[in-house]
Amino acid sequence: MRRADLTDKDITSLIALCNRLADVAGTEALRYFRTRDLTADNKLADGFDPVTQADRAAEAAMRKILDAERPADAVLGEEHGARPGTSGLKWVLDPIDGTRAYISGTATWGVLIALCDAEGPFLGVIDQPYTGERFVGGLGQAHLSGPRGTAPLQTRATHELSAAILFSTFPEIGTEAERAAFQAVSAACKLTRYGMDCYAYGLLAAGHIDLVIEAGLNSYDICAPIAVIEAAGGIVTDWQGGPAHAGGQVLAAANADLHAAALARLQQKA
Amino acid sequence: MRRADLTDKDITSLIALCNRLADVAGTEALRYFRTRDLTADNKLADGFDPVTQADRAAEAAMRKILDAERPADAVLGEEHGARPGTSGLKWVLDPIDGTRAYISGTATWGVLIALCDAEGPFLGVIDQPYTGERFVGGLGQAHLSGPRGTAPLQTRATHELSAAILFSTFPEIGTEAERAAFQAVSAACKLTRYGMDCYAYGLLAAGHIDLVIEAGLNSYDICAPIAVIEAAGGIVTDWQGGPAHAGGQVLAAANADLHAAALARLQQKA
Repeated sequence: MRRADLTDKDITSLIALCNRLADVAGTEALRYFRTRDLTADNKLADGFDPVTQADRAAEAAMRKILDAERPADAVLGEEHGARPGTSGLKWVLDPIDGTRAYISGTATWGVLIALCDAEGPFLGVIDQPYTGERFVGGLGQAHLSGPRGTAPLQTRATHELSAAILFSTFPEIGTEAERAAFQAVSAACKLTRYGMDCYAYGLLAAGHIDLVIEAGLNSYDICAPIAVIEAAGGIVTDWQGGPAHAGGQVLAAANADLHAAALARLQQKA
Repeated sequence: MRRADLTDKDITSLIALCNRLADVAGTEALRYFRTRDLTADNKLADGFDPVTQADRAAEAAMRKILDAERPADAVLGEEHGARPGTSGLKWVLDPIDGTRAYISGTATWGVLIALCDAEGPFLGVIDQPYTGERFVGGLGQAHLSGPRGTAPLQTRATHELSAAILFSTFPEIGTEAERAAFQAVSAACKLTRYGMDCYAYGLLAAGHIDLVIEAGLNSYDICAPIAVIEAAGGIVTDWQGGPAHAGGQVLAAANADLHAAALARLQQKA
């Protein structure tokens, strides 16, 4: 099955399911957010890549629903691995994207949910349960719902790097060569900011910022942002201009002009 | 007048006034937040230090109330300058701390309000109007009110740098020497994050993070955080261990052990 095979009824049902998945994951994630009994385990021998009981519980809650209602679809999740499917559709889940933000108490982490076919993601949710903001894109959807109402998502028309706002999660992005390439774009931009995790992709889709550049991502970090940003008129590729849904290097841009300008600078250095 | 001269009635009235100031500033700040008609002027000839109509309107709204109700108090604000007073008390206002965050759509900026006597700030508010979070500290207050209720502010008991979470707004913090000093602390910490502006001080007061280190601050950037953090059990000084309310280099720590450990590393390098 591919996205083109979906009926209107399928679409309505899949969008509703996405929202249910985000609801249950958000409930689990908030159960531990900013609590004193939150504990983080380190997934890395060399470095600090935390995972918490909240990550595991939030993903388990989503997988329980998918196991029951979408047994033919494949599932890939950050914490509980891959389950094969037969339908041609795959759910890609990151229960808490930005666990470092989560354990620091900043409301910039998110639940990421994407639905993919062989071509890549075509429906995505970026959900921030603490602020109550949910970015949804794909299958005709492109909106942000939150504490101050619901608004359409639409990337903005910044066409010059010199007027652009660039985000990345860490200043120490990727390898040394990747960092140099990032700096080549950053130096040409009006403003560079750090620390937003997946929330930066939501801001790009909503037309508040212009570029997000990251390296070393996993598939589950980027599938949902791709669907949301593309639905809002933006472009997401790797640093060679190819598909980004497998992870690695990611360039997300508000429009084609800005994408081309950033890509040219990344490639000069990379 | 000094803080020790305040009656219970004064205290009740000053806390209520702080809340009113935050309310009116928040209303003005939200009027333009994430709107397409927001425009940023650059205050720097060399660099980018934005100010918006929202900064100016939010400060004007607070000053109007102070002019009417506290004419004997001095007022210092980021956008509209200093007004002398005769009472010995001074209001220090930053209508939007984190204007770069504000124009990027991230809910990590805040309205900062502090009340000072000759010794420094003794009542402070850090308000994030979009999320509805308000950190209040001083004169017996130490709490965070927000969309999920009200909770006491209490810094946490992390005593080793190796277990500490450190925040700073920009990785390119201050001068080269200041950056080296910051890196000496950062290298010893479990996790370093960027991009939160004044919100990081709120997270420290609420016990979610352990250290905030910044350089090149103005008085109006730090007076309110000092009052909030001290009320929550934390310590804020400059990088020599002296008062920080005049701005410049700032070290905010959850407790005395952590403060001493960070100060030692800053001084080795500074």
